[in-house]
Order: sequence, then structure tokens, then C-alpha cells
Amino acid sequence: MSGYDSALSIFSPDGHVFQVEYASEAVKRGTCAVGVKGKECVVLGCEKRTTLKLQDPRITPSKICKIDKHALLAFAGLNADARILVDKARVEAQSHRLTLEDSVTIEYLTKYIAGVQQKYTQSGGVRPFGIATIIAGFDSNDTVPKLYQTEPSGVYNAWKAHAIGRSSKTVKEFLEKNYVDELSDEETIKLTVKSLLEVVQTGAKNIEISVLKAGDVIKQLTVDEIKTYVDEIESEKAAEAEKKKPKSKD
Amino acid sequence: MSGYDSALSIFSPDGHVFQVEYASEAVKRGTCAVGVKGKECVVLGCEKRTTLKLQDPRITPSKICKIDKHALLAFAGLNADARILVDKARVEAQSHRLTLEDSVTIEYLTKYIAGVQQKYTQSGGVRPFGIATIIAGFDSNDTVPKLYQTEPSGVYNAWKAHAIGRSSKTVKEFLEKNYVDELSDEETIKLTVKSLLEVVQTGAKNIEISVLKAGDVIKQLTVDEIKTYVDEIESEKAAEAEKKKPKSKD
Amino acid sequence: MSGYDSALSIFSPDGHVFQVEYASEAVKRGTCAVGVKGKECVVLGCEKRTTLKLQDPRITPSKICKIDKHALLAFAGLNADARILVDKARVEAQSHRLTLEDSVTIEYLTKYIAGVQQKYTQSGGVRPFGIATIIAGFDSNDTVPKLYQTEPSGVYNAWKAHAIGRSSKTVKEFLEKNYVDELSDEETIKLTVKSLLEVVQTGAKNIEISVLKAGDVIKQLTVDEIKTYVDEIESEKAAEAEKKKPKSKD
Amino acid sequence: MSGYDSALSIFSPDGHVFQVEYASEAVKRGTCAVGVKGKECVVLGCEKRTTLKLQDPRITPSKICKIDKHALLAFAGLNADARILVDKARVEAQSHRLTLEDSVTIEYLTKYIAGVQQKYTQSGGVRPFGIATIIAGFDSNDTVPKLYQTEPSGVYNAWKAHAIGRSSKTVKEFLEKNYVDELSDEETIKLTVKSLLEVVQTGAKNIEISVLKAGDVIKQLTVDEIKTYVDEIESEKAAEAEKKKPKSKD
Amino acid sequence: MSGYDSALSIFSPDGHVFQVEYASEAVKRGTCAVGVKGKECVVLGCEKRTTLKLQDPRITPSKICKIDKHALLAFAGLNADARILVDKARVEAQSHRLTLEDSVTIEYLTKYIAGVQQKYTQSGGVRPFGIATIIAGFDSNDTVPKLYQTEPSGVYNAWKAHAIGRSSKTVKEFLEKNYVDELSDEETIKLTVKSLLEVVQTGAKNIEISVLKAGDVIKQLTVDEIKTYVDEIESEKAAEAEKKKPKSKD
Amino acid sequence: MSGYDSALSIFSPDGHVFQVEYASEAVKRGTCAVGVKGKECVVLGCEKRTTLKLQDPRITPSKICKIDKHALLAFAGLNADARILVDKARVEAQSHRLTLEDSVTIEYLTKYIAGVQQKYTQSGGVRPFGIATIIAGFDSNDTVPKLYQTEPSGVYNAWKAHAIGRSSKTVKEFLEKNYVDELSDEETIKLTVKSLLEVVQTGAKNIEISVLKAGDVIKQLTVDEIKTYVDEIESEKAAEAEKKKPKSKD
Amino acid sequence: MSGYDSALSIFSPDGHVFQVEYASEAVKRGTCAVGVKGKECVVLGCEKRTTLKLQDPRITPSKICKIDKHALLAFAGLNADARILVDKARVEAQSHRLTLEDSVTIEYLTKYIAGVQQKYTQSGGVRPFGIATIIAGFDSNDTVPKLYQTEPSGVYNAWKAHAIGRSSKTVKEFLEKNYVDELSDEETIKLTVKSLLEVVQTGAKNIEISVLKAGDVIKQLTVDEIKTYVDEIESEKAAEAEKKKPKSKD
Repeated sequence: MSGYDSALSIFSPDGHVFQVEYASEAVKRGTCAVGVKGKECVVLGCEKRTTLKLQDPRITPSKICKIDKHALLAFAGLNADARILVDKARVEAQSHRLTLEDSVTIEYLTKYIAGVQQKYTQSGGVRPFGIATIIAGFDSNDTVPKLYQTEPSGVYNAWKAHAIGRSSKTVKEFLEKNYVDELSDEETIKLTVKSLLEVVQTGAKNIEISVLKAGDVIKQLTVDEIKTYVDEIESEKAAEAEKKKPKSKD
Repeated sequence: MSGYDSALSIFSPDGHVFQVEYASEAVKRGTCAVGVKGKECVVLGCEKRTTLKLQDPRITPSKICKIDKHALLAFAGLNADARILVDKARVEAQSHRLTLEDSVTIEYLTKYIAGVQQKYTQSGGVRPFGIATIIAGFDSNDTVPKLYQTEPSGVYNAWKAHAIGRSSKTVKEFLEKNYVDELSDEETIKLTVKSLLEVVQTGAKNIEISVLKAGDVIKQLTVDEIKTYVDEIESEKAAEAEKKKPKSKD
Repeated sequence: MSGYDSALSIFSPDGHVFQVEYASEAVKRGTCAVGVKGKECVVLGCEKRTTLKLQDPRITPSKICKIDKHALLAFAGLNADARILVDKARVEAQSHRLTLEDSVTIEYLTKYIAGVQQKYTQSGGVRPFGIATIIAGFDSNDTVPKLYQTEPSGVYNAWKAHAIGRSSKTVKEFLEKNYVDELSDEETIKLTVKSLLEVVQTGAKNIEISVLKAGDVIKQLTVDEIKTYVDEIESEKAAEAEKKKPKSKD
Repeated sequence: MSGYDSALSIFSPDGHVFQVEYASEAVKRGTCAVGVKGKECVVLGCEKRTTLKLQDPRITPSKICKIDKHALLAFAGLNADARILVDKARVEAQSHRLTLEDSVTIEYLTKYIAGVQQKYTQSGGVRPFGIATIIAGFDSNDTVPKLYQTEPSGVYNAWKAHAIGRSSKTVKEFLEKNYVDELSDEETIKLTVKSLLEVVQTGAKNIEISVLKAGDVIKQLTVDEIKTYVDEIESEKAAEAEKKKPKSKD
Repeated sequence: MSGYDSALSIFSPDGHVFQVEYASEAVKRGTCAVGVKGKECVVLGCEKRTTLKLQDPRITPSKICKIDKHALLAFAGLNADARILVDKARVEAQSHRLTLEDSVTIEYLTKYIAGVQQKYTQSGGVRPFGIATIIAGFDSNDTVPKLYQTEPSGVYNAWKAHAIGRSSKTVKEFLEKNYVDELSDEETIKLTVKSLLEVVQTGAKNIEISVLKAGDVIKQLTVDEIKTYVDEIESEKAAEAEKKKPKSKD
Repeated sequence: MSGYDSALSIFSPDGHVFQVEYASEAVKRGTCAVGVKGKECVVLGCEKRTTLKLQDPRITPSKICKIDKHALLAFAGLNADARILVDKARVEAQSHRLTLEDSVTIEYLTKYIAGVQQKYTQSGGVRPFGIATIIAGFDSNDTVPKLYQTEPSGVYNAWKAHAIGRSSKTVKEFLEKNYVDELSDEETIKLTVKSLLEVVQTGAKNIEISVLKAGDVIKQLTVDEIKTYVDEIESEKAAEAEKKKPKSKD
Repeated sequence: MSGYDSALSIFSPDGHVFQVEYASEAVKRGTCAVGVKGKECVVLGCEKRTTLKLQDPRITPSKICKIDKHALLAFAGLNADARILVDKARVEAQSHRLTLEDSVTIEYLTKYIAGVQQKYTQSGGVRPFGIATIIAGFDSNDTVPKLYQTEPSGVYNAWKAHAIGRSSKTVKEFLEKNYVDELSDEETIKLTVKSLLEVVQTGAKNIEISVLKAGDVIKQLTVDEIKTYVDEIESEKAAEAEKKKPKSKD
């Protein structure tokens, strides 16, 4: 195995680009991020590492980043790499706005980010970005929510709901079982929270939720708002568990 | 073997460029794409990976890409690499249109794409593109359909019908047995679908078909339209199988 | 394992960037630095290596560096690397001041420093910076103290109180147990000194303390001032130890 | 042996440039190409790989390329490499024509092509071109046919008749035995076809022939025209074989 | 261990930069240099290798170099490396003088030199400078002597008295035992000579002494002047040794 | 031994530059070239490889190249390398002529060529030129013939007569035994031919001779002219052999 | 040992720069060169390799090169490397003369040459110069002879008399024993010749001598002039040997 994987981003005899696959391992070790599309909104959620007692939660850099007035990006993987990519995306969005007097479409933004990621897999002297991203937003004058995901290889896809990072497999399976179309805003948020609870045992304080709606509306839920959803979900679960219990013998 | 293949795209003692051959392995692992020329049309088809339940099939990036009003490209291999090459081709097509006030010929386009692929096999510091392409279209003021294919090495060829990617060998053998000249539009589409069914067991939902006709006409078939062809093909097959059955003993 | 880690900052098969992790070892061997936010101030403290008898303590380069009138940076790790980064930060702060006629925010400064650190982890031909930093200050026209930390990877976080370098784990545990919000200036300084005494056995002469307050006020404590705090802390400890002693038998 | 041949185009202890010799192996694996000078013409011929049933023979890229109105180039080796070199030669020919208001001489063209090939054997970061070429044509206002050959090393020579690529040794021996000076156009074409039949068992459909004459006349033979030559050659062979047969015993 | 240390200046797993540590070995093999601050002067001294009989001692390059009218630099390590660094420092000092119409401060000069040294430890393609330096001088309009030292890593420190190079450990221990503040010029020179005699057995002819005083006064002692100090020191030692001798028995 | 010789043109532990020595092996395998100075002329001769029957001897590139009206260069080693060097020399000669309105001296030309050869032995990323050269000519307004030789290392020397390439040792020994000063033109040519016959068994057809005289006179001998010399030499040899024969016994 | 010494000019664990030490081996294999200062002159001498019978001794490149009207350089080591360095020095000397309207001092020239040599020991992609030099001359308007020596490392020193190259140790020991100050011109030349005879057994024909005097006087001795010195030295030696012989017994 040595030799193929040591220097540049080159092909192995069976057609793999090793550095890309290793970068994906960095993504898998990152905290989980989730995106869910509703009828009129799109919700991004992510796991927050338990902030140590002395960490300042208000200004700790979030894993959900605003790219433009109408677009958010959640990532999993190396924080520092993400920031570089987010900065590039912001500059691109601004320069698009200035030149064309219109905001970038979410698809354009996705392609731009994925394109940058690809370039770092084909040239020598650099390593791929160690992050995957979920990009969400609304195109200008459009009420259809958009949700994309990009990988270290530069591959991207559109999703109704998706998860990246640690235990994302579990979350994706949960979403596949529970997602339905045309979710109301409330239901979309609730599904996002519920899916994150599959990997986050510690409740609302380790969950971060942002909601996007058409017209450049971005809302970040407070811990209390999230807690309300968590409590509701847990009491529902308890009720359901109760139902499933065998009736008492008497 | 170690040493020759580790660093740059250099020759091995028997005259092979290893990185090119390894890139071809990435192509072989990509989903299958097919191109078929008819009398007055050219049809591109490709296998769509089963989209996961939550993937958004409408805006998931297709493996059939429009390069210009008169030219399509289907690819097999690394998606992210393909996008870079497609972007370069689009820019070239547009700049040609602007400079010469005419659209590029399909052959020019093919040479351009193959030329970019070759350059990445001869310089240090980069790896070859991990994709093969099928390029289809009509030259301006011409009703003769054109169909080309390019490889990671930068080699290209013209075809009446061709396939690349996973199980392409099987598909090519099928096409060789069943292709006839001067196919009508309907027959061309049907042959394309039929050839893809050799590798796609799951029917219309995993097939994508685009039809090009002279005069910048590009039509993408709906899943229902494809399904009609699939059903027709399957009932024909059933009928034929019936015929081949040994007559009942009585 | 050899091969992955020898040349550039590239990924290992399990998604680590080795050079970044090795740079963190250089940080761990550096002298300890501490930052503590109070209600109206932020205090940076650090361990001073016992200056040899003939070293000139007045002009020996300090590990607490002034970046601008309103911002200080403490570091742990390779001194020479730190100086380069500090110089870059100063130039950025000055050029921001000149261009925008306002001082940089502490968050902007942190992002800038962390961004430089990240770049040195992704390009070939350079090694990461072998330092971690604590950045403290006040934004213009704001009385809320700010405290950030950056790592060799380019990751940064906001803290109420934090420590980096040699034995920083011990200091952080101490801070977690003893930190309370809304500390007065006196209490903030005292907590900083106390936390450093966890790793510094030799008292005031090996401790350096800087205090920032809103309005571009930066004050460096004299050895005597620090000694007063040390003495106070030690008599308190003695008193407490006395209390804990089992009562005499008689 | 490992080490010398792995990285750049450098000398081995016995004065060989390995990458050049390995590139020659790529040439040996290419299809055969032949050039023959007549009294008033020069003929290039080459083996066409059996086009698969569905390949479009009309527009499949030929191994005989037109460089300018008065010059053709046939090659053996890597197709994609050849195209790059052919493009460079065309640009040089055009720019010469524009600057000096005259066409390049065939010798100038040969030196240019061989010079490009040499450069790729002496610099780091690139590999040699994996092709040999035969260059044919007439200088302006001159009726003397010209025929040259170049190798991956950048060496070139002038020939009355020559062959490169697969089994070229056999073809060259045939030409040495059968070439005579002052061949008529017909005889030159016939000798070219005959020599190719030494390695091409499948007749006219796998042979490509181009004829150059003074005054920028380039003619590509049709398959039927080639077939006429092949048939003639075969009936002559049969007649000769008949003659050589031992007389019947009666 | 091989691999980490072979190519660029990169981190080893335990956070060392090998090339920097190896460069320090070159310093340790260099001749010894000493710097001592007095009340109103600063003295640099160094060991001169025994000049071979035919070497021209007057113009043999000295290890004490004048950087500007008010600043001297003594070095230990690779002579040729030192010259390059000295030249850079001189140019910086001159250009500072021209631009700002004032001489550089000794601290600025030290930072500049240390900064150049650091850069050669972080970039690929170069090796660190194999020298340590002692920089001495007076800032303009200031009568406080300044004394700094820089290392191959780019680290620098301020000292009352310091030594670098061969046996510098012995010299530093001597200085620590014997240095007192507020030395007169005579006492400063004498201490410098005395400390060098710890490693130089061959007396005045192998010692070089330069004295700086405020007002751009630089004086290089003659061999005779140094001899006077050496003789004085030796007679004192003899006297002291005499005193320590056990009294005669009678 | 491996390691020293693999990458760049670097020194081995005993002070050799391996790539230069390996390039000399390429020279030793090249055909032999000879240069002889007469009283009023200088003659270059070289071995021509037996041209294969079909090679065009008239336009096959010669190993004796005209650099300018007054200067010739013969080489041994890699043909393609020689052409590059010859082209550089021609450009230098022309640009000298244009700038200074005078032709280059033969010594200047030699230094230029040797300088280019040296540069390729000291920089990374290129290999040395695999050729040795003999440079002959007359300076402007001078009737003294000049003869120089250069090696792959960039070393050059002036000679009365010299040989390079295959079996050059034998030829040089012959020249040392037979050369006398002040040779007439006829004698110079004859000695050149005679010396080449030491390694060329196949007579005039494998020998190439060029004669330079003052006043930009360059004459290339025809095969017939060479044959006359060869015949004369052989009959002399025969006569001499006859003389040496023991007298018959009767 | 492998690894440290293979690629760039980097430090070994004990602080050596291997490539520099290997370059010194190339110097040791070069022919011997000597420089001796007299009262009013400075003499350079060197060993000439026995020119082969056919070498042209008049224009064979000498190992004593004129840098400017007032400066000579003798070298030992790789001839081709020396020429490059000599050319650089000449250009520097001329450009100094043009810019400052004065000739360079010998010390400036020495520093310049040594500086170039140093640069080639610290950057990647090049190897050090394989030569040592002795530089001699007079500064303008000065009658004091100057004599310096530089090494591959870029180190330089001033000497009364010095030797480099093959057997230079023997020559230096001879010079140390026999050199006296204030030598007349005649004595200086004689000592130079005598010292060279320590390593040159073959007398005047293998010795080259150049004499410099103030006022841009450079004189190269003829073989006959050298022979006169050699004969004188030998008869003196014979006389001395005679004296030492034991008196005859009778």
C-alpha cells in the first residue's frame, strides 16, 4: 500500500484516489450535521460537542455557517478546513451579487464549493479538504427549498433530507423511515431534532438548529426552543413505549 | 512494480503509462453510459444509481450534461472530475461561439476534451481525469448525427453506437449484435433503452435518456416515457421466450 | 506508518494530518499560558522560564504580545514561529485600521490568525506553525471582554477561561472548578495567578500577567504586584489547610 | 535497476535515458506505418486497427495527419500524444506561412517536431512523447519528394522508404529487398500496399493510403482503390507461387 | 528515525524540527564568542582559531562583524552562512537609516536577524542557517548598552552576559559566577577576556575583543592591549593560587 | 551507491558528479569524430553509420554541423541532444554578428557551448547533454586554424588534433604517433582520413570529411574524393607491408 | 548515512552539510595551485597537467584566470564549474567599474565569489561549486599585495602564501617552513616555483606562473623563464645535497 498513497493525489492500481478516501475518514470523525426540506422551509441541524464548562457557547464558531442572505452551509470534518472553504464561498456569493445584481442560486453555490473541493484532489502539493458540506437555501424569487450535499471528492447531490459526519448512517436510516413530503415548518424542525437525537444523547444543549424560509429569512433556534421540541419528542416516545408495553396481567 | 507508478505519469519499462491505466479502472467502476446514432437523431442513455429514498431525483446532477445548444456529453467515472471537464468544454464552446459566430463542430469539441485529458497524462503534479466520455450532437446546418467517445488517455474515436463504464463490454456486444443503420428515432431510443437493460435490472427508474436532433433540439425523456419503452421491450422478450419454448407434449 | 508523515501535510489512512498533530507536540512542550475573562476585564498570564542569572528579564521577549492597542496574544510553543505569526497579525490589524478607520474586532483577528495557521497545514513545502495562541481584547465601543484560542490546525474557540502549553490540562481542570462568572478585576487577576501556580512552583518571579480593559487599556503587572497576589493566595491556602487539619486531641 | 528509471529523464550508469527507451516500447506496440518515395510522389500508408462493427470508419481519427497543404505525418504509438504533437506542428507551419509568406520545408518541419520530442526527454516533470513519426511532403516550388522519420528521443533521419511501429522490422526488410529508385506513382502505391500486407493479414479494409504530389496535391485512396491494389498483388503472388511449384510428375 | 529528517524542515512525531537541531550542532562546533554588558559599554570577545603561520591575521575575516555605526554582531558556526546573514542585516540597517533617518534599535536588528533565521526553518528547499549570533550596541540617543543572542531556530533573548559556540557551557557558568552589575569599562573587558581564557589556552593571540560605547564608538583592542589583560589576569590567578596553597610547615 | 546517483546532478562522497560521468558513457557509444589542424586549414572528419539501404544519405542529418560561415562543429553522442546545442550555438553566433557586427571567435563559441553544457550539470530538473563536441574554424581576419573540444561536464580544451566517441582512444594514439606540424591541406585531409580508417573498416562510404579554410571557406568532400584518399592510403599501406615482408629465400 | 546526503544541501545530525564536504573532495582531486605574496608583488602558480602531445598548450584554458586588470584567480577542482564562477566575477568586476568608476578591491571580489559559493550550499535544486580559489591582486592606488582563498562552503581567508588542490598539504608545509616576509619579486617567484616542485616532478613544462604588481601589471612567465628558476633551484639543491654528504674517507 505504501507508495501509492504517500505523495500526491494519484490513482492506485484499482482506480482509487487514496487521499480523497482518507479525507472522508476525517469527515466521519466530525460531529453529525443534518438537513431536512419541508414544504416551505429547509432546516439545518447539527450536533454541538459538549462545550467545556468554560467555553463561551455564544461565540464558539458554529458548524452552521451563513454564506449569504439566502444560503446556509453545515459541515462535518476539520473545522479549520471548513472555514477556508466557507470564506471562498462567501467571496464568490458577494462577487456574484455585485457583478450580476442577483444572488447566486443554491445549485450554483453548490457547484462552486464542490468544484473547489475537486481541484484539491487533482493537483500536486495540496491535500483534499477534510470536510463534507450540506448547503441549504432558496433561489431568489423562488419558494422551493433547496438542499445539497458535497463530499471531499467534489461530488455533490440534491436531497430531501440528508446527514453527514459521525453516525450519519444511523441518522440517514432514521430519515428514510420517517421522512414524508410536504412537511410543515413545525414538522420539519421536529424531524430534524428527532433525527439528531438518534446520535445525541445529551439533549437540547448539544443541538443547534437553523431554519431558512423564502425571502432571506434565517432563524436560529434558541436552546429553549430546541428544548421544547426535545421534550415533546421524548414524551411522545414515552407514550408510545407505554402503548407497546404488554397490558398488566390483572 | 513499485517506483514506476508512484509519482508522475511516466512510462514503465514496457511502455505503459500506469496512471492512465489506473484511471481507466475508475472509469470501469462508474455507471454505464450508452450512445446510439439513428438516421436523424443521436440518443444518449445512462444508468442512474438507485437514488436513495431521500435523494432529490429532479436536481441530482445527471451523468448526461449539456455542453451547448447542439451538444451533449455522457460520462462514466469520477463525477467530480467530469464536472471540471464539462465546465472547460462549455467555456470553450461559448468562446468559440462568440469569436467565430458559429457553434463548435462535434469533432472540434471532442478533440478539445480529449486534448485536455491528454495534457493531464503527460505533465507532473497532476493526475489524469478519471472519466471516459461519450459526446453527441449535430454540427451547425448539418443533419448528420455525430457520436464520439474519449478515454482518460486522451484517445477518441467516432462510433455508430458505443458504451462506457460498468459492464460496458456486455452492452457493446449487445449493440454489435443488434445495431442496424438508418434507425428511426423511435428505434434508436428503443435500442438505447434495450442495451441499457442488459446491465440495469431495475427498469425505467434507473435509466436516463436524452435525444438530440438537428436544429438544436434536445429532449430528455420522462420516466414514464422510458417506462413505455421498457414495458414494450419486456413484452417482446416474453413473447420471444414463449416462441422459443418447446411445444407442449400433447 | 512511515511514508505518510514524511513529506507534505497529507492525510493518513484514518484521516489524520500528521504534521498538525506533531506540531501540537511542540505546543505541549511550550511554557503554559492562561487567559481569564472577568466582568469588565480580560487577563492573560503565562509562565516565564526561570531566566538564567545573566538573562536580561526586562527585554527578554515576552510570550504575551501586543497585537494592537486593544488586543493581546499569548502563545505556547516555538518562540520563533510565534513571532512570525504575531508580525502578520500586527500588519493585518494596522492595515485594517488604515483602510476601515476602525480597529479589528477580536473575532476578526482570531479568524485571521487561525486562517494563516490553517494554510500552513494544507500546502506543500511548508510545515504548520508550532504554536497555540490565546487572543484577548475588546472590540471598539464595546465593554464585553473577548477571549479566543487557536490551535496549530487553525481551529479556534471562544472561552471564558482557558490554558495552553505545558500542563495546560491541570490548569484547565483548576479553572473549571474555580471559575465563576462576573468576576471583578481583582478576582480575575487572582484566579489567573492562582491557576498558574498549579504549574509554577517558583512563585511570582516566573509569572507574567497582563490586564486588558475597555478603552484600549493594557496594564502589565510588576513582579511586586504579582508577588502580592501570590502571597495572598498562599496565606489563604495555608489558612485553609489549617482548617482542614484534624483538631488536636486535647 | 530501480531508482535510475523512476523519476526524471536521467542517465543510467551506462549512458541510457530510460524513459526514452520505455517510450520506444509504446511505439513498438502501435500500429505499423509506412512511407515510400517515388520519382514524383511520396506515399504514406498505415495499418488501421480492425474497426469494431459499430465504429464509424469515416470519422475515426486517422494515423495519417495533414500538417499543411504540402505535408503529411504518419505516426505509431500513443494516439493522444500524437495529436498534441500534430497540433504543435500545424501551428508552427501556419505561423511560418504567415510570417515568411512561404510554406515550411519538410526538413524544417521535421526538425521542429524532433526538437519538441527532444525537449521532453531532457526536462523534469514531463515524460517523452510515446510516438515515432514519418513526415512526407514537397518543399515549395520543388518536385523532389521528401520523407523523414522521427523517434521519441528526438532523433530524425531521411529515408527513401521506411516503416515504424508494430512489426516494422519485417516491413523494413521487405522494403530493402523490393525498393528500387524512380518508381512511378502506381508502383510507389503498390509497393506501399505490398509492404503493409506483410503485417496486415486482413486486406484492404485495414489499410489506409495517402499520396502526395508536388503542387499541394494530397489524395487519400478509397477502400475500393486500395482493394484493387490488394487484389492485383494477391493474384501476382498466386501466379508466382504457381510458377515456383514443382512441375506435376506426369 | 530516517524519513522525518531527510527532506524539508518538518516536525518529527514528538514536535521537533530536526534540521534546526542539527544546525545547532554546527553552532556547537564553531569557535566560542562572548558578550558582556558593563555600566556604560558592551564588550564582544571571541576565540580566534590559531592562524596558521602564513595566514594574514590582519585581513582574515573576523567573527565580530560591524553591522552599523552603533551595532556589532559576533557569531559561532558556519562562517559562510554568517556572512550572508550579516550582509542582509547591513542592508536592512542602511535602508532603515535612509528611510526613517534614524539608526535601527538593537532590538529591531535582533528581531530582523532572528526573523530571517526563522524563515529558513519553515520553508522547503532551504536549510536553516548554521549559526548563532550575539548582537551588541546602543540605540540612538541612549546610553544603555544592549546585548542579544539569536539561535538557528530564530529564537532570541536579551542578556547581561552570554556565550555561544564551542564550550560555551563552561563560559556561561563562569560568567554566572563572576558577573556583577555596573561594571566599569575596564572591568567589563577584563571579565570578557577572563571568560574566554576558560576555553582559550593559548592566550592573547587567539582572542579578539571589541568594545562599544554610546555615540557610535567602536574600538577593537590590539593584541598587545589584550595581552596586558591576559597577563594581569594570570598574575592575579597565580597570586590567588599562592594564597590557597597550604602554608609551609615550618 | 544508490541514492547519490538517482535524482539531481549532485556530488557523491568522493566528489564525483555521477550524471556527468554517465553522460560520458553516451558519448563513448556515439560514432567517432576527428579534428586535425593543418598549416592553413582545419579538417573535421567523422564516421557515418552504414546508412541502411533505404536511408537517404544526402539529407540524413550529418554529425558535422555548420554553426556559422566560419565555424563547424562535429559531435559524438546523442543526436537529438546535439541538435539542441547546435541550435543554441547558431542563435548565439547570429546574435553576436548582429550586435557586434563581427563573427564570434572560435574560442568564444567554444566557451559558450561548454558553458551551456556546464549549466545542465549543476541545476536540478535537467540532465547533462549526452554529447562531446569538436569545434573548428577561423577567427575573422585571421589565418590561424582553431580546434577545440568540449565534454558533457562543460570542460573544453584546444588541440592540434583530437578525436571523440567510439574507439577515440585508438584514434588519438594514432594521431599522436603521426601528427606533424605545418601540414599542407592535402596532408591534413589525408591524416584525418587515415585516422578514421583506424576505426572504420568499410572505407570511404562511411566517412565524412569537411575542410575549413580562412575567409569563410567550407568544403565538404564527396564520397569519390574521400575514396581517392582511401585508395591512396591503402596502396601506401600495401607497399609498406610489402617492404616489411622478409625477403624471399632465393 | 543514506538519506541525509542524497537530495538537498541539508544538515546531517552532527551539523555537517554533506554536499559541501563532497565538493571538497572534487577540489582535492584537482591540480595544485599556489599563491605567494612578496614585498611588492604577488605570484600565482599552478601545476599544468602534462598536455598530451596534440593538445595546443597556447590556448588550452589556464587554471589562472584574469578577473580584471588588477586581479587574478587560480583554482583547483572542476574546470567547468570554475569558468562559470570566473564569468560571474568578471561581470561583477566590470559592473562595479562602470557604476563606481573604480576597480573592485580584492577583498570585495573575494567576498563576492565566496558569497556565490555559499548560496549554492544553502538552496535546493543546485549543488555546490566543486572548486576552491586563490584570488590575488592590488587595490587601486595601493601597493600592498593581497592574497585570498575561498572554499566550496563559501569560507574565505587571507594568506601570505597558500596552496589548494592535489597534495596541497605538502605544499603548505613547505611554504610554512620556507616563507619569509618582505620577499623581493625574484624571491617570490622562486619560492612559488620551488613549492610547486614539491608536487610537480616533471619540471618547468608542467608549471605555470603569473606575477602581479601594483599598477595593473600582470606578467605570465614563459616556459623558458620558469625553466631558469627550476634549473637554479635544482642546482642549489644538488649543491646542498653535496654539502650534506659525508666527507670522503680519505
